[in-house]
Amino acid sequence: MVLTMKLFLKIAFLGTKYCGYQVQNNAPTIQQALNEAAERVFGFECDVVGCSRTDSGVHANEFCLTVSQKGVQHLNHSIPIDKIPTAFNSLLPDDIAVFYAEMVSDEFHPRYDVKYKEYVYKIWNGKYKNPFVGDRMYNCPFHISKASINEMNVAAKAFIGKHDFTSFMATGSKITDAVRTVYYADVFVDGDIVIFKVAADGFLYNMVRIMVGTLLDVARNKFSYEAIGGIINSKCRKNAGSTASACGLYLNKVSYEEYTVND
Amino acid sequence: MVLTMKLFLKIAFLGTKYCGYQVQNNAPTIQQALNEAAERVFGFECDVVGCSRTDSGVHANEFCLTVSQKGVQHLNHSIPIDKIPTAFNSLLPDDIAVFYAEMVSDEFHPRYDVKYKEYVYKIWNGKYKNPFVGDRMYNCPFHISKASINEMNVAAKAFIGKHDFTSFMATGSKITDAVRTVYYADVFVDGDIVIFKVAADGFLYNMVRIMVGTLLDVARNKFSYEAIGGIINSKCRKNAGSTASACGLYLNKVSYEEYTVND
Repeated sequence: MVLTMKLFLKIAFLGTKYCGYQVQNNAPTIQQALNEAAERVFGFECDVVGCSRTDSGVHANEFCLTVSQKGVQHLNHSIPIDKIPTAFNSLLPDDIAVFYAEMVSDEFHPRYDVKYKEYVYKIWNGKYKNPFVGDRMYNCPFHISKASINEMNVAAKAFIGKHDFTSFMATGSKITDAVRTVYYADVFVDGDIVIFKVAADGFLYNMVRIMVGTLLDVARNKFSYEAIGGIINSKCRKNAGSTASACGLYLNKVSYEEYTVND
Repeated sequence: MVLTMKLFLKIAFLGTKYCGYQVQNNAPTIQQALNEAAERVFGFECDVVGCSRTDSGVHANEFCLTVSQKGVQHLNHSIPIDKIPTAFNSLLPDDIAVFYAEMVSDEFHPRYDVKYKEYVYKIWNGKYKNPFVGDRMYNCPFHISKASINEMNVAAKAFIGKHDFTSFMATGSKITDAVRTVYYADVFVDGDIVIFKVAADGFLYNMVRIMVGTLLDVARNKFSYEAIGGIINSKCRKNAGSTASACGLYLNKVSYEEYTVND
């Protein structure tokens, strides 16, 4: 039996100029840029399969994907694996970078085999707006006090566990089973930046951005920090906050191992 | 005698989208954005005078300017001074921010009264390119070793002192007196970033960027680290390195006090 393999890559990207990950007609996407680079690296057309569909303007510190020859499940090539990142990087646009490569079994699936993902959302909370963060963080129009940050963190704990997150899913989404398990959800500060970090076995469309919009409503006292549980139980999108801007959102970690509390 | 005053502002900006500071026909500039904001803040046309002309794509962590009513040297207004930054920030584009305001004597000149300025130049030197730094740092196409960084720092010391910097001035510049005094010049690292920091009583056109291009030539062994003195003495632009990309350059500090070694 011949063991057939395909290429597994970890990439990071600034999503500002892209209409999300997934290939679309007449719009630049991350997948299309990778398809074009892979064809130039290997000399034949390739199938590129990603771990997730990210929205327009969303970024990734870690995004996983596989590359195989078009129409077959494997990839034969003679490039040393440690030369692969640089080979791709020299051909990809400046805002997409490969930082890890290995060959994996052709049975591996970069999306179906994900056990959990972690997102971070960055909110600029300095005294004045920061001209350098425009498309990389949400420039919060009001100041979030330390007390409010603590309340946001307490409120975020209500996301943890197995819940029906219909209230935190974009209306019009075709998903029928909105039950997801959130492993952790934290609000903390790094200098003048407020960060929301959340991990789950899966995320619904706009789920993290609606969570952030709701936590910002806690910060501005529109909701009590104790309101999240009731919003989840209502299973009604209208009861949650607005959808926070895409520019602050980063896919931060993709795990193919089950979540353990030591992670 | 009535003491007349004008407004002094410190701003920061991401220069990517601007054709430099100085107003031009049919091109967006920092000065034009400030002129438009000032007119909306005060309700009349204003003169905005900056501390420096920055190039297209160059950024500032600190840039100083004055605002007075158009055609006169002073500004009368009734806005509390601590409300001025926010008033401007709500009207300026996302990539320009005011972070300090005070009223100063109408005899103060934001450019002629500068005693020294400090620039920093940021070079990304990670193992792989960084997709998030595109227009904010120079993504170095080769790896700079620790030994090379030390050599760049030793080389940079030759810039210190009073020299004719004709070799480090863009050709075609109309300046006839190219003598400037450099107070300090350092190359150091911050994580995966190599930083060049330089202060002088004045800078010639493209001077910092040509210094960086020359130091990068030291890193790639095109020049010895001992070559800088000879390049300065030759007073010939062709003997220095190429002009490094504008995207890595930040005006970092503008001082209206004489330089002292404790700064």
